[in-house]
Amino acid sequence: MQANVQVLIIMGSNSDLPIMQETADMLGQFDVPCEMRISSAHRSPARTAKLASEAAGRGIKVIIAGAGMAAHLAGVIASETILPVIGVPVSGSALNGVDALYATVQMPGGIPVATMTIGKAGAKNAAILAVQILALNDARLTEALRNYRREMALDVERRDEDLQAVRAVEESR
Amino acid sequence: MQANVQVLIIMGSNSDLPIMQETADMLGQFDVPCEMRISSAHRSPARTAKLASEAAGRGIKVIIAGAGMAAHLAGVIASETILPVIGVPVSGSALNGVDALYATVQMPGGIPVATMTIGKAGAKNAAILAVQILALNDARLTEALRNYRREMALDVERRDEDLQAVRAVEESR
Amino acid sequence: MQANVQVLIIMGSNSDLPIMQETADMLGQFDVPCEMRISSAHRSPARTAKLASEAAGRGIKVIIAGAGMAAHLAGVIASETILPVIGVPVSGSALNGVDALYATVQMPGGIPVATMTIGKAGAKNAAILAVQILALNDARLTEALRNYRREMALDVERRDEDLQAVRAVEESR
Amino acid sequence: MQANVQVLIIMGSNSDLPIMQETADMLGQFDVPCEMRISSAHRSPARTAKLASEAAGRGIKVIIAGAGMAAHLAGVIASETILPVIGVPVSGSALNGVDALYATVQMPGGIPVATMTIGKAGAKNAAILAVQILALNDARLTEALRNYRREMALDVERRDEDLQAVRAVEESR
Amino acid sequence: MQANVQVLIIMGSNSDLPIMQETADMLGQFDVPCEMRISSAHRSPARTAKLASEAAGRGIKVIIAGAGMAAHLAGVIASETILPVIGVPVSGSALNGVDALYATVQMPGGIPVATMTIGKAGAKNAAILAVQILALNDARLTEALRNYRREMALDVERRDEDLQAVRAVEESR
Amino acid sequence: MQANVQVLIIMGSNSDLPIMQETADMLGQFDVPCEMRISSAHRSPARTAKLASEAAGRGIKVIIAGAGMAAHLAGVIASETILPVIGVPVSGSALNGVDALYATVQMPGGIPVATMTIGKAGAKNAAILAVQILALNDARLTEALRNYRREMALDVERRDEDLQAVRAVEESR
Amino acid sequence: MQANVQVLIIMGSNSDLPIMQETADMLGQFDVPCEMRISSAHRSPARTAKLASEAAGRGIKVIIAGAGMAAHLAGVIASETILPVIGVPVSGSALNGVDALYATVQMPGGIPVATMTIGKAGAKNAAILAVQILALNDARLTEALRNYRREMALDVERRDEDLQAVRAVEESR
Amino acid sequence: MQANVQVLIIMGSNSDLPIMQETADMLGQFDVPCEMRISSAHRSPARTAKLASEAAGRGIKVIIAGAGMAAHLAGVIASETILPVIGVPVSGSALNGVDALYATVQMPGGIPVATMTIGKAGAKNAAILAVQILALNDARLTEALRNYRREMALDVERRDEDLQAVRAVEESR
Repeated sequence: MQANVQVLIIMGSNSDLPIMQETADMLGQFDVPCEMRISSAHRSPARTAKLASEAAGRGIKVIIAGAGMAAHLAGVIASETILPVIGVPVSGSALNGVDALYATVQMPGGIPVATMTIGKAGAKNAAILAVQILALNDARLTEALRNYRREMALDVERRDEDLQAVRAVEESR
Repeated sequence: MQANVQVLIIMGSNSDLPIMQETADMLGQFDVPCEMRISSAHRSPARTAKLASEAAGRGIKVIIAGAGMAAHLAGVIASETILPVIGVPVSGSALNGVDALYATVQMPGGIPVATMTIGKAGAKNAAILAVQILALNDARLTEALRNYRREMALDVERRDEDLQAVRAVEESR
Repeated sequence: MQANVQVLIIMGSNSDLPIMQETADMLGQFDVPCEMRISSAHRSPARTAKLASEAAGRGIKVIIAGAGMAAHLAGVIASETILPVIGVPVSGSALNGVDALYATVQMPGGIPVATMTIGKAGAKNAAILAVQILALNDARLTEALRNYRREMALDVERRDEDLQAVRAVEESR
Repeated sequence: MQANVQVLIIMGSNSDLPIMQETADMLGQFDVPCEMRISSAHRSPARTAKLASEAAGRGIKVIIAGAGMAAHLAGVIASETILPVIGVPVSGSALNGVDALYATVQMPGGIPVATMTIGKAGAKNAAILAVQILALNDARLTEALRNYRREMALDVERRDEDLQAVRAVEESR
Repeated sequence: MQANVQVLIIMGSNSDLPIMQETADMLGQFDVPCEMRISSAHRSPARTAKLASEAAGRGIKVIIAGAGMAAHLAGVIASETILPVIGVPVSGSALNGVDALYATVQMPGGIPVATMTIGKAGAKNAAILAVQILALNDARLTEALRNYRREMALDVERRDEDLQAVRAVEESR
Repeated sequence: MQANVQVLIIMGSNSDLPIMQETADMLGQFDVPCEMRISSAHRSPARTAKLASEAAGRGIKVIIAGAGMAAHLAGVIASETILPVIGVPVSGSALNGVDALYATVQMPGGIPVATMTIGKAGAKNAAILAVQILALNDARLTEALRNYRREMALDVERRDEDLQAVRAVEESR
Repeated sequence: MQANVQVLIIMGSNSDLPIMQETADMLGQFDVPCEMRISSAHRSPARTAKLASEAAGRGIKVIIAGAGMAAHLAGVIASETILPVIGVPVSGSALNGVDALYATVQMPGGIPVATMTIGKAGAKNAAILAVQILALNDARLTEALRNYRREMALDVERRDEDLQAVRAVEESR
Repeated sequence: MQANVQVLIIMGSNSDLPIMQETADMLGQFDVPCEMRISSAHRSPARTAKLASEAAGRGIKVIIAGAGMAAHLAGVIASETILPVIGVPVSGSALNGVDALYATVQMPGGIPVATMTIGKAGAKNAAILAVQILALNDARLTEALRNYRREMALDVERRDEDLQAVRAVEESR
């Protein structure tokens, strides 16, 4: 494991991996070293508490937790650390992730969880939010975020141009 | 504290007391000694884990947990004990207890929480379910439950008779 | 049928079998003898009432009921017995099991149903809760539950180790 | 009790009386004799089944059932009779009657419950639907329903006229 | 068209046909002659009003309306006739039929719609409810409904017996 | 009634008047003459259809319909006219207006209803949308809308200034 | 780009194109020239504001915005123009478009968005509503809308006739 | 205005002030200077964009946005800055804040909003999350957060002790 891990990603089950890989990939785009762990709030509570409570001491700055159903993972982690904790509600149950959303976002006063969109968009956004937090003291990341935003806006423009081109051809027929 | 406590009631906040008092009162009706504690899944996680993990050793048979919002309490307790854990979703948030219901009932495979009705009816039923579990090895409680059922049925009959009497008077006018 | 059946599983329709088989399989893992019956709250009410009211006399300790849509089965059974009744809401309707969840969990004060997660996770958990109840007077089951918990925690650890190994390989490339 | 009762109103609890009185009052407007009973699906199941299964033999034509929360009452009654059963979901729980609506309307194939609006509007409509059913073989009720409809339309007109009068005065100022 | 049609089935669109065919098939099982029409509340309002208002004069006894989304069809029909109107909410929209359910069941006081389960189970039940209404004055249908109920109960028993046989074989291995 | 009415407001019941008065008041602010009528989709269907189908011939440009519960009013009106129809879902039922929202917005393809926010904000916005539509051919209204927007932005600024003043005083203590 | 564009269609992402193409196609049926643009409320906010604020000056009369998830697009556009803005909630998220519906329709007082059905039906209806607005000052479009309505009604009739023919054949067998 | 403001609180309307004051008060407890502004996403879009885009240049580290209904405020702000944006869904509409929750949390990939609990608990937690973010580079805040957590746990203990004392007295009677 890398010495300078800045973001710890924890998921409740390896079935959440296809979603949470989005987080790791996006952090990778920003060259932010992360650690990705499987640890359950319910099936391995002691291990989860240990991962959370020791994170700050290891130099970790942000923890991202992804879980589905009665998604207690982010809240349980948040209760064991004062690092910012970002929660990603994972869909997949009969309730399509509304259960995971409510169980993640509706934290009582005192212990916040920064909750993201349900599913892949949320997993991606968790990484970006972590980078935004780290960028507060990292000029490289500030610049990288500005480029990312610029690139997103350009991408919208390019897709719009493509659409105009397609429509111009259609109309000229 | 009593030596022979059989049911441990834990609530996440003293704001849950008006609801969870229903549980204690109903256990009292069945002369089942209980202990009622305030301990939060998020604000006092170590203490909650200790209460849960030590319960079996103290002779406790059933744990009842009441909490609102992202109600992790019952699930967190269930992850620390193999005693049956009964969860009472408490209303009060903007979401009227649906958040507490989903966060209590939608437990992943492996760690069950026996979930009750949202609010006071659920707090009362948690006590009755605990008595039903204890009654499996307690003839006195079996008899008491039969009486309770009989009395409930009689109560329905009496209320129906009252209604018939009122309506007979109305019609005779 | 076996003489020493301890858990009675009732489902409202044979379409619920793929879900409720999870319950039987999990009870089988714990060597808890069970009986699995099809009986509907609405299409065969007398038979369902008979199954429920005679269960205690047959030595059954816990009843598990699985049903979908307006899932009255668990509640109807609970009204005919003082044994603990565990309800499994089955998905499959247009409402994705929310109807079954509400119809199972929102029991009025006096007649509790221990409600589980919607679907397969709930069917599995119903078995585990039944074992937790039986274990209160069965040292073998207490030990078996402890092993099950230990194995679950180890399984999480093993999956985490696999993930770390995969990621180490990826990073070394 | 009257010999010629045509509609049987059953409610699960006397707390439902303020709602279900609307049904009795509306039947009274149509001079349709009814009987109003309290009987619970869960607390007095045998009595409820008896009321339902004996209704046809007593000359009753339609049964109306009002209940809240996990409202099994209408479904349980429908399983014991081939008379048309009308269900009124009663609000009052944390879930504002959505639980009662789903538990009443989402009946499995084979046993219908004619479900009405949640609450007072539904209790009133249950009576009107019963009258519409009885009117299929009762010319007096057919005429009465036509008058009722005419009167409703006139009432809308009168209220509209009142509004126009008020607004004309306002504008003339 | 048959002279003695007793039940009129109206659907809002031919895309509802696979659902509403269940209604026609079930009425066929009871030898109740029915007419099945496509007419939209919104796209052909005059025609729909005409179908509804003329139904009673044609000797029709019950109208069944199936529609999806903002399902106004049953309510619009109910406003044009004093015949009992049964509504079947059809799924298929992004909201999975909850929109159709609410738009069908939440009728204001004065104009009831007897609302069924969302989808196929509801379409089937609409037919059975219609038969239950017709049976109030038709001894043949009363007998047929009793047979149908008996057959349903027997079917549950047979499926249970099959399950017991399968399990006995499994256990004997 | 005024000759030059441009907007017709229809509500299903006089209980909707406190909400729909917001619409009339806002139209009044823009000096747009309107007519406000009570007419029910269900209790006075013929009158409602007449109001809707004759509106265009009377010179009316936009129809605004407010209704609660299974709010068919806007859809029924939209089926009788090609004028733009704006729907205001009115709260008040057990379902808090979600029923009215779904019944108003989920119109099938072919017959649109321009749906507004549930309740008073929606009633106010219905008027503004009507003015926006009328302003496409009315320079006075275009100017009035620009002023209204400017005033709204200034109002936000003034309230912000008030807040800063209050906070400055608090901090100086 | 055409000089006389009357309707501007904006979508938040090119993934919304299969839905919003319905709008362009329907406008094409009415020979209403439109421009279709991709511009995101969040990824290209300045560009979106520019498109919205410059639309009126370009002679555009109606703006249609389609977006999913936290669908801010229509509201953001509405805040930058006094042209009528029509919002189409696009499904596709875990929440099946309820998120997009609420984020589009629940606008605060002052800034209306004319909200359509979730998904394709809404995209189609957005075009029709735009045509209804334009038709207020365009006799050709008034006539075209009347034909469209007539054709829809005829289409319902034809489908009904087909159904009657099919059923007549079935019955004659 | 203070020179060293670290957290900018923006609310959409002064009606949100009673909720968002919780945020300011909690930041005050941690001696974190903040600025509280009223600026609407819809009624003053240019001003809101300016506040958001200039925040980083003013030395602000975190922006907290509170809004109700179709709560676009946090998302709109997030699109104008790369600072971490925390969203507080404010209740108050007919939908009890579910609309605000979905409109805040369901952000598309690329622009995250760290979403908090609906209402006061969320407003308080927004402040704590902001402090947790600032504490990553501020030893004083790290220590203050540890104290805050310790105090919360002690508070739970004290309330539990009070409860035990009350119950001991009750039992001794």
